Amino acid sequence: MFTPREEVGQRSETVRRANLSAIVRELHLRGPLSRSELVAWTGLTRSAIRSLVGDLVAGDFVVEEAALRLGTPGRPSPQVRLVADSVVVLALEIAVDSLAVAIVGLGGEVHWKERVDRPRAHSSLGDIVDDLCHLAKRARDQRPSYQTPIGVGVAVAGLVRPIDGVVAAGPNLGWIDVPLGAHLAAALDLGAPVEVANEADLGALAEFRRGAARGAEDVVYVHGEVGVGGGIIVGGRPLSGTNGFGGEIGHMPINPAGRPCRCGSTGCWETEIGEVALLARAGYPLDGGRMAVAALIADAAEGRPEAVEALRVTGRWLGVGLAGLVNVLNPRVIVLGGLFSRAFPYLIDDVNAEISALALVASRRVVSVAPASLGIDAPLLGAAELAFEPLLADPVAWLGPRTGAVPQLVVA
Amino acid sequence: MFTPREEVGQRSETVRRANLSAIVRELHLRGPLSRSELVAWTGLTRSAIRSLVGDLVAGDFVVEEAALRLGTPGRPSPQVRLVADSVVVLALEIAVDSLAVAIVGLGGEVHWKERVDRPRAHSSLGDIVDDLCHLAKRARDQRPSYQTPIGVGVAVAGLVRPIDGVVAAGPNLGWIDVPLGAHLAAALDLGAPVEVANEADLGALAEFRRGAARGAEDVVYVHGEVGVGGGIIVGGRPLSGTNGFGGEIGHMPINPAGRPCRCGSTGCWETEIGEVALLARAGYPLDGGRMAVAALIADAAEGRPEAVEALRVTGRWLGVGLAGLVNVLNPRVIVLGGLFSRAFPYLIDDVNAEISALALVASRRVVSVAPASLGIDAPLLGAAELAFEPLLADPVAWLGPRTGAVPQLVVA
Repeated sequence: MFTPREEVGQRSETVRRANLSAIVRELHLRGPLSRSELVAWTGLTRSAIRSLVGDLVAGDFVVEEAALRLGTPGRPSPQVRLVADSVVVLALEIAVDSLAVAIVGLGGEVHWKERVDRPRAHSSLGDIVDDLCHLAKRARDQRPSYQTPIGVGVAVAGLVRPIDGVVAAGPNLGWIDVPLGAHLAAALDLGAPVEVANEADLGALAEFRRGAARGAEDVVYVHGEVGVGGGIIVGGRPLSGTNGFGGEIGHMPINPAGRPCRCGSTGCWETEIGEVALLARAGYPLDGGRMAVAALIADAAEGRPEAVEALRVTGRWLGVGLAGLVNVLNPRVIVLGGLFSRAFPYLIDDVNAEISALALVASRRVVSVAPASLGIDAPLLGAAELAFEPLLADPVAWLGPRTGAVPQLVVA
Repeated sequence: MFTPREEVGQRSETVRRANLSAIVRELHLRGPLSRSELVAWTGLTRSAIRSLVGDLVAGDFVVEEAALRLGTPGRPSPQVRLVADSVVVLALEIAVDSLAVAIVGLGGEVHWKERVDRPRAHSSLGDIVDDLCHLAKRARDQRPSYQTPIGVGVAVAGLVRPIDGVVAAGPNLGWIDVPLGAHLAAALDLGAPVEVANEADLGALAEFRRGAARGAEDVVYVHGEVGVGGGIIVGGRPLSGTNGFGGEIGHMPINPAGRPCRCGSTGCWETEIGEVALLARAGYPLDGGRMAVAALIADAAEGRPEAVEALRVTGRWLGVGLAGLVNVLNPRVIVLGGLFSRAFPYLIDDVNAEISALALVASRRVVSVAPASLGIDAPLLGAAELAFEPLLADPVAWLGPRTGAVPQLVVA
């Protein structure tokens, strides 16, 4: 009904770039497609698709190959497929208790992935950067035939200023205003841009593009571990906010009579649904971390009452906050990640009961609550998507200025 | 950093329409502009602006006229100006205790406006439609020279399904699933489309385009009367949600130990900051309505302690909920409308203190809280913007299929 603010004028010469972007983006997200499917998904004309796909073939960006159509009559329709191996990104993650690396190809194939534990202690920027460089080197050594990554995406458990990759606040790392992006770019020395973002925002992006929220336009992703983070998709676009700090749903005030929060406030949602609240309710050691949560969930699976009840109470508080988000955002899908995904079967009934009791019927009848389908790797895979974004937004930079030039990729 | 989902391919033949839309939209929102200013605001080339403005002049949509530039050297730059009188919309509002009508010209000039009280009782659809038609007829009789409105926008105190203008829930009217849009279209019989939307969503749109939030891309508008509604702008676009019910911030659970809400839930924000909670705190009659609130504010202005304290407590609860919205949405501007605008001086210190205490520093340092600058008429003016939207999105429909045709306006 409202017209997007972005619908401003387009210069004719930018149209071809936008059209190439649309095609490459669909192939990246959906896999090989026939020309007819590209017409359907992009809204471009058949003749535009023919010409643009020709440019992409000449640029060694895609191939067209006859697809076998078993059992269907008529000539098989050729499939347009990305030459995925030619373009890879490096994805890195700094989670609360692990570090991870992945090499991901255009189209989303994960060529290599490794996750190592890290202690839950404050860490210096130098140590973290060293560890990530070590992981990145090992990943690239495993696959020496790969190209240099065209970009690096980094997911981090903290508030990130997107414009320069500074971690404004990373309570689990003990970081305030730490220039992670710049230091990583220098240390990795790949000549590729390094983009840093909040882990929950990237988890939301990955679940939206390739996970439990695929096809939905309005999504809330809740990532629960020590802290509770969130990522929000509104009308198909990630909610960023004025300076990139949107989605901090863990710090909605939810209980005026509640506990102090690490953030300095009182009664934040995190104080009722985070790891510590859960462990406290079940009488487990508060500093037991992910192992203690795993034990608690295993105990719940065996019916131990303290564990079952602790998860049910957590589920109720989870539902209270989600009811508010349902009323404010009217989402189609709520994705529960982190510990909420692992404990999903023991939480979901209470979550749904609270949403039904507290949210407006018009909004609650269109929303469903699902566990994250990408598991612990959602933020890491979101970091890969982040690193692909410049290429997806303007593939022409990799195709040469006009048509048919060899892709401007640096071979390692 | 993320690329909008909407950046899909554009057919070349749609580019001209998008460009005309960009020009007409800028002129509608900013007033007369020189060609250089149009280049700056639309991002189009100078030659594109020349050609497109020519089309708009030929279509009798704009005029170019020499502007006097007192005191500046050089030839005065001609100003491109909309021929505003040629295109008007009809705006209607069904508020809790009033009905309103306006005739608004392209460019935003209000040619006629009238507001009449209505009792706060449940009303039948037929009675409301009759009253609105009467107001609309009176408005058009005052200005018989005007065109038939090209569109009708309706703001209503209720949850609206945008697709068909059905009021899904209007608690103050006693409405559930009432087909307001269809009945109004038939009764008005103007041959113009009728668009219906929630009053707070339209208040947000008006404050965003022409009021206190102008220039901000991320905005929260809070409209407080009997109920508390909200309108949210994210990245320059109104937040709609999956089926158009987003922005119902009045029903965020805020106080688990709180009062039952009209919506069937408990402890909604509305139960702490709505009109009834305010009147109760000050010991005023709960059914006193807008007059009682006005008396309370007047008493606060004279320093009567019960009134001052009631507004301060309301301000604190207002701040608690806003802190959550600041953390979730990271807005640039929060606009307080309705009774919060009238009581602004007596609330704002406590609002700001709570936001400072409860919101994350990274987000709270970029946000400011302002009173609605369009006052009680914000939703009505938003309804006019809504009615202009089809023309702004595609002026070609009014220009004829190619160039230079006379606008397809029906003269009354």
